[in-house]
Amino acid sequence: MNQLADSIEVIAFDVFGTVVDWHGSVMHEVASMYPAVDADAFALAWRAGYQPAMKEVMDRGEWVILDELHRRILDRVLDAFGLESLDEEQRHHLNRVWHRLDPWPDAVEGLTRLGSRFMVTTLSNGNIGLLAEMAKRAGLRWDCILCAETFRKYKPHPDTYLGVARTFELQPAQVMLAAAHHGDLDKARGCGLQTAYIERPFEYGRDNPKPVEPWEANTLHCRSIVHLAEQLGC
Amino acid sequence: MNQLADSIEVIAFDVFGTVVDWHGSVMHEVASMYPAVDADAFALAWRAGYQPAMKEVMDRGEWVILDELHRRILDRVLDAFGLESLDEEQRHHLNRVWHRLDPWPDAVEGLTRLGSRFMVTTLSNGNIGLLAEMAKRAGLRWDCILCAETFRKYKPHPDTYLGVARTFELQPAQVMLAAAHHGDLDKARGCGLQTAYIERPFEYGRDNPKPVEPWEANTLHCRSIVHLAEQLGC
Repeated sequence: MNQLADSIEVIAFDVFGTVVDWHGSVMHEVASMYPAVDADAFALAWRAGYQPAMKEVMDRGEWVILDELHRRILDRVLDAFGLESLDEEQRHHLNRVWHRLDPWPDAVEGLTRLGSRFMVTTLSNGNIGLLAEMAKRAGLRWDCILCAETFRKYKPHPDTYLGVARTFELQPAQVMLAAAHHGDLDKARGCGLQTAYIERPFEYGRDNPKPVEPWEANTLHCRSIVHLAEQLGC
Repeated sequence: MNQLADSIEVIAFDVFGTVVDWHGSVMHEVASMYPAVDADAFALAWRAGYQPAMKEVMDRGEWVILDELHRRILDRVLDAFGLESLDEEQRHHLNRVWHRLDPWPDAVEGLTRLGSRFMVTTLSNGNIGLLAEMAKRAGLRWDCILCAETFRKYKPHPDTYLGVARTFELQPAQVMLAAAHHGDLDKARGCGLQTAYIERPFEYGRDNPKPVEPWEANTLHCRSIVHLAEQLGC
């Protein structure tokens, strides 16, 4: 396994779902502020708008940061959940819940250990301000924040995966993407990156477990970020 | 002074000369590799090419990262100093000395203390990879790396100063630029940012001290980054 670790310089992390628990964090904040709402369904509906909103932006060739996409989706979700009376300040505050997501219990230790040996960066569709504020609040130790905003493209556009390698003047195989989503990892592998799958069975909540079986195509399969660190000798 | 600290959310740092000692670092590496060369003059000549090279890029409306500009200048400086025989690998290695600059003695402590209260980011003309590698090697604790590459404009273009405020959804006056260069601070102030001057009398070497008198227009005048932290109650 040391041979693998020796071949890698940079580990790039997907963030939503992989490093932080978006479902639990959004659900808890919505539940505490608006107790009458089904907070589990609210969190799922908000997130469900994310892929189509990004696709629309990419298809049009326009560029909009994720905070703005989250807000567009939020305005529709509020209507659907009977919260159309929220004023501008309340909507703005709620939209920034994505800056206040809590890390999974293994994330802070795992990233810190990986940072002792590797350059550890985000590769997220979140915007720079969102990711920096989340990291500061949660104690996530990034060496660098790379994201859709850096490259003006959302994942899974190849410019994002290859952009990490280019930023550090590396070959794609010297970069490993760590993510809880096989689709993201597939696209990264297609660009020549190494891939580590991180199990997050409760990404969509305790009531909606997702399968986390190993896929052979990935370089590593990890129960947690700490497990990734262990497998890479950190 | 607490009133000032309360009004600020983000402190953005110029890096070359303000946080790290480019002259001493370049000079020492050149002297150790090429003892026959006047390393002091070499470092000054390399840096002297920087402003004209950036201006040329900006005037043409093209976009090139600083690593590439450093390399274009280096190739000319090598000729001028009788080092035209260096091969591609040697040139590439030497060019990356800008990733290996040493911090001024107060920088690590000062940034760490400021980070306990503020969002602390770079605002440098360096590129992302350069700044991330420098920070990791030197132990500089950035919450975020913002730079010319982020905004596709070099300082002093207003998009860079205002880009920091925009990244964090702040008013310009909630951002403070810290720099050892009055010209940089002037432009930032013109965009509405607060400004802190950091004294670096030996930025150009012990043999070339520069004046570091206070300018009244700056919000703060600091003998070091630790002194800035002290004045902001950190």
